[in-house]
Amino acid sequence: MEIQLMCIGKTDRSIWSEAMAKYQYRLKHYIKFSVIYLPNIKISKKIDPIKVKTEEGKILLKNISSSDTVILLDESGKSLSSNAFSKEIENYMINGNNKIIFLIGGPYGFSNEIYNKFPKSIALSKMTFSHQMIRLFFCEQLYRAFTIINHHPYHNN
Amino acid sequence: MEIQLMCIGKTDRSIWSEAMAKYQYRLKHYIKFSVIYLPNIKISKKIDPIKVKTEEGKILLKNISSSDTVILLDESGKSLSSNAFSKEIENYMINGNNKIIFLIGGPYGFSNEIYNKFPKSIALSKMTFSHQMIRLFFCEQLYRAFTIINHHPYHNN
Repeated sequence: MEIQLMCIGKTDRSIWSEAMAKYQYRLKHYIKFSVIYLPNIKISKKIDPIKVKTEEGKILLKNISSSDTVILLDESGKSLSSNAFSKEIENYMINGNNKIIFLIGGPYGFSNEIYNKFPKSIALSKMTFSHQMIRLFFCEQLYRAFTIINHHPYHNN
Repeated sequence: MEIQLMCIGKTDRSIWSEAMAKYQYRLKHYIKFSVIYLPNIKISKKIDPIKVKTEEGKILLKNISSSDTVILLDESGKSLSSNAFSKEIENYMINGNNKIIFLIGGPYGFSNEIYNKFPKSIALSKMTFSHQMIRLFFCEQLYRAFTIINHHPYHNN
């Protein structure tokens, strides 16, 4: 199994990428994991948010194949505990999923096309966090999930 | 009004303290805000988690006065959207609260004494995050709350 975190726009500040790298490195022990940064749409003040979301949706779809399992990371999604999230990851592994893609939307969220095509979504929090921060959250939480699955003492420590 | 984030143990890695400093600096425009680090209990393998929580609870209580409003940051607490959280902060300001203290527990969580004394709790997420990370999350979310209250365009951008 392979897991990808797919997001719009680069992680530009070094503190975020440094912190993410730490978890990406640790995840290597457990799973093939990569972070895919797709180019963002240039946003001028006049641009319509719906148009931005639609264009971003098209870019996302170009990078997803029909055999991929896609889960949206979205505030409106299901709130899970870390243990429940690790159970979901374990189930994907048991069910023989080939590639799991977790999607993080652009500044205005996901387009209706994306919501309709991929009904499965998880909320890391009901709160809105910066795009840079949510990427880091996810990497830490995915690492935590694998430590739970593998009975590594990281969780609850 | 003054807001404190009170937690057990230092933020030791520079990437976390650097990221937190960024939000602490920005918060200065809006509110008197400080992060209080209390000494943690030395944990040996033999030590009882309940004893650790009780001792930490005593240290926390020594640093809280009866006029302070205390809110626990706890996974079992109420999940709020960023907008709802900003509304709570605004209400505290309107109601003339002098000092609001947000508490983050130690590695085993809060003692029963703390839960009983301070029934108000908020969950930044239902997931468990590292203690370093939850501090950073809180600072970002508090900054976001003040940008919402002050109609600054940070939120939803």
